[in-house]
Amino acid sequence: MALQQIYRTSLSLLTDLYQITMAYGYWKQGMAEREAVFHLYFRKNPFEGGYTVAAGLEHAVEYLQALKFTEDDLAYLGSLKGAQGQPLFEQEFLEYLRQMEFSCDVDAVPEGTVVFPNEPLVRVRGPLLQAQLIETPLLTIINFETLIATKAARIKEAAKGDTVIEFGMRRAQGIDGALAAARAAYVGGADATSNLLAGKLYDIPVKGTHAHSWVQAFDTEEEAFKAYGEAFPKDSVFLVDTYNTVEGVKKAIAVARELQPQGFILGGIRLDSGDLTYLSIEARKLLDEAGFTGTSIVASNDLDEHLITHLKQEGAKINVWGVGTKMITAYDQPALGGVYKLAALKNGEWEYKIKLSEQLAKTSNPGALQVRRYYNQERYLADMIYNELEPLPAQPQIVDPVDVTRRKTMDKDALHKELLVPVFQQGQLVYTLPTLKSIKATTAHELSQLHESIRRYVNPHSYPAGLESNLHHYKLNLIMHLKGTGSEA
Amino acid sequence: MALQQIYRTSLSLLTDLYQITMAYGYWKQGMAEREAVFHLYFRKNPFEGGYTVAAGLEHAVEYLQALKFTEDDLAYLGSLKGAQGQPLFEQEFLEYLRQMEFSCDVDAVPEGTVVFPNEPLVRVRGPLLQAQLIETPLLTIINFETLIATKAARIKEAAKGDTVIEFGMRRAQGIDGALAAARAAYVGGADATSNLLAGKLYDIPVKGTHAHSWVQAFDTEEEAFKAYGEAFPKDSVFLVDTYNTVEGVKKAIAVARELQPQGFILGGIRLDSGDLTYLSIEARKLLDEAGFTGTSIVASNDLDEHLITHLKQEGAKINVWGVGTKMITAYDQPALGGVYKLAALKNGEWEYKIKLSEQLAKTSNPGALQVRRYYNQERYLADMIYNELEPLPAQPQIVDPVDVTRRKTMDKDALHKELLVPVFQQGQLVYTLPTLKSIKATTAHELSQLHESIRRYVNPHSYPAGLESNLHHYKLNLIMHLKGTGSEA
Repeated sequence: MALQQIYRTSLSLLTDLYQITMAYGYWKQGMAEREAVFHLYFRKNPFEGGYTVAAGLEHAVEYLQALKFTEDDLAYLGSLKGAQGQPLFEQEFLEYLRQMEFSCDVDAVPEGTVVFPNEPLVRVRGPLLQAQLIETPLLTIINFETLIATKAARIKEAAKGDTVIEFGMRRAQGIDGALAAARAAYVGGADATSNLLAGKLYDIPVKGTHAHSWVQAFDTEEEAFKAYGEAFPKDSVFLVDTYNTVEGVKKAIAVARELQPQGFILGGIRLDSGDLTYLSIEARKLLDEAGFTGTSIVASNDLDEHLITHLKQEGAKINVWGVGTKMITAYDQPALGGVYKLAALKNGEWEYKIKLSEQLAKTSNPGALQVRRYYNQERYLADMIYNELEPLPAQPQIVDPVDVTRRKTMDKDALHKELLVPVFQQGQLVYTLPTLKSIKATTAHELSQLHESIRRYVNPHSYPAGLESNLHHYKLNLIMHLKGTGSEA
Repeated sequence: MALQQIYRTSLSLLTDLYQITMAYGYWKQGMAEREAVFHLYFRKNPFEGGYTVAAGLEHAVEYLQALKFTEDDLAYLGSLKGAQGQPLFEQEFLEYLRQMEFSCDVDAVPEGTVVFPNEPLVRVRGPLLQAQLIETPLLTIINFETLIATKAARIKEAAKGDTVIEFGMRRAQGIDGALAAARAAYVGGADATSNLLAGKLYDIPVKGTHAHSWVQAFDTEEEAFKAYGEAFPKDSVFLVDTYNTVEGVKKAIAVARELQPQGFILGGIRLDSGDLTYLSIEARKLLDEAGFTGTSIVASNDLDEHLITHLKQEGAKINVWGVGTKMITAYDQPALGGVYKLAALKNGEWEYKIKLSEQLAKTSNPGALQVRRYYNQERYLADMIYNELEPLPAQPQIVDPVDVTRRKTMDKDALHKELLVPVFQQGQLVYTLPTLKSIKATTAHELSQLHESIRRYVNPHSYPAGLESNLHHYKLNLIMHLKGTGSEA
């Protein structure tokens, strides 16, 4: 099957088998259309960081809008056999899927918003069968794009105002691993991408230099630079490390001088190996002495926020950072462990649900949750996760989920915003998707509202984000009830 | 732009900008159609391992077959502006791209073959412009799928004959990160996937259990198990850790007994948290005592080859391994550092090319390379990388690239096979793509031909794979010539 045909197929089967087996079970039990609430959230900021940048909502919306089982999908489901060769699903159930129209309410945090552990990024409320079915693709999309946006934000922070270019396509995890990541990196902080298709599809600025093979294709490095300079008189960045970097810089300068009378401008040189600090200092000296003070020094070679910081501390004279593998795969933590948990189910009244598991940290939060973010003129102050189905006290307390003795009392109506906004109502899109450039601006604004100790990428200060105290107590009691250990009070 | 529309676009711009700027440069220099040879290879086995499993060729073939610039692509390229607002490319060049038909020879190692550092997985020979252009997508596809196939092979090795199921979609790097990885994991050793779309598209067996939310949706765990058991009387695997694992196992047994008269078979129970060794031993005891000796114990929760080995050493009674995040993202090394380097260029005669860089390990190999694998009745003995454009001596020596004093002399015509096979000739596909099941069988056979000390996944023995000595000497002389340090002899 051709690569592109794969994506021409319906994406309704883009989910785990168990979502369909559970759907079948709910349908058989007559529970398919009971109203349920699920939350998508993560338990820990990635990269040992102090914040996370939400991303992926646009792709999630597109997936949900297209959700419809085709005849082809149903034929495949009908062909699945159980352990004893019997059909796994009844025809009548497949007919139910054929008729199914997405009808959930979806609330979500806009892309570019900074978020913290346990805060729902997406809340789905609607028929149990549907709300369960979409778990896997929502997680795939939101987990990955949020991860990469966060990584890019950290790298851009480390670059302290320098230009950051996403160069990672060749090391990405698949084609969409490259495309979705190029977009997420731009959301998080990258200024441009080398990925032309991402440039075309998302209108992201594209940048590039040339490869070593360009230099190798000519008899000498000078000839190679000259030929490239003639093709791009205003846009040349010469890669100078094919044979010997310092000699390469000298040759770049000689060629730039030779072409100057024709109006040539040497945009930059690129270093891709060796000691980037030493070589960039030497290169800067040679360029400045020759009068090329406006020529950029671009560096690449396994860069990330930590290496960029070290290089800057060592005095490296680099002002454009080409970041590949470490950004496009979020190399030091290539997955965000986001989860999607049932939190309430209507049975006449709402019943609140949690999952205990053997690990307390994995216990979920009950209710239909919203996040209230308090702020003042200068910055964000604290986030409160609360259950929208219950009344809020006038002076709510925020309880730190890790250290329950750490609490913060707020005035309910102090300056605040609610993070989750309506995206679908009864299956209809009610949200206007922002442009990518405005999402990027949102990220920059959001980050500026965090104290710099929270933006720090080694041992950051922890931003106060916790459960509203009634929710906290309700949850504790529910845990103790389910464990048969009495109640807290 | 809708998620699926993205993939309905031409993939011809699925490359780095610099591939097109170099193409433009070659075209301007009249060098576009000079014959070139490039190799795609990696420098180090991933995961500190002793081997690598090649994968991704099928998707690479599909990409190459579809390579054709559309009007839409050309309009985008025509819209790109340089630093001073001038168009980046001349119209005449875009016309050249419009007319371009892929006409390269491509030789490649079949999927499922075990390969070693410096061996070309793909060799492209043809017009310089075309051969350069395809660098980035070939790397994206081959790097990722090879990485995941190798990870899956290691995990399957650790499972020592147990069933391994790929469960990772929700943590994958994008949609294609999930799909291409599900296929590659199956190539490498996974027995099934939870990813329904991968099941449908690639005909991979699909498996699944149910989620915690299923249990939460009922008033009691017993009711939940009973409802699931009624829906899947022959295929139920109950997840037992929603509240308390040991109690969960007892309830699973009670429900299985209750449903037994209706012909119910308890396929398995699944553990997803806590101490998997302790809990699986307790669960096995309870199941066996109740007569459910045929019921499987499925485990999941951040498993990889190392954790599976530890659990087995501790006596865990697990016989089905659901592996997610760590396999689907190759968590401990989420990118294979494969590269694509120019090795020869025709200028009347062939000129051999290498790239030095500041790091010797990054130096490429010149020529048009083939890999000869020597073997006997029992196993693979050694691989020899040689230049097909030069004659082979009768008794070639293989030189270890890391330790040049380590050499192995072979009889040229001793039992051997050539790893690279023709895939495209002058742009025409001449290779019959094997079925996925036969690729999977190839992997299993190939791994069986390696001594177990090489398959070991901690501190493996190093398989002899090196340069033929004439090639080795030629390369050394070329390096010394380029560095201006004389010649070796």
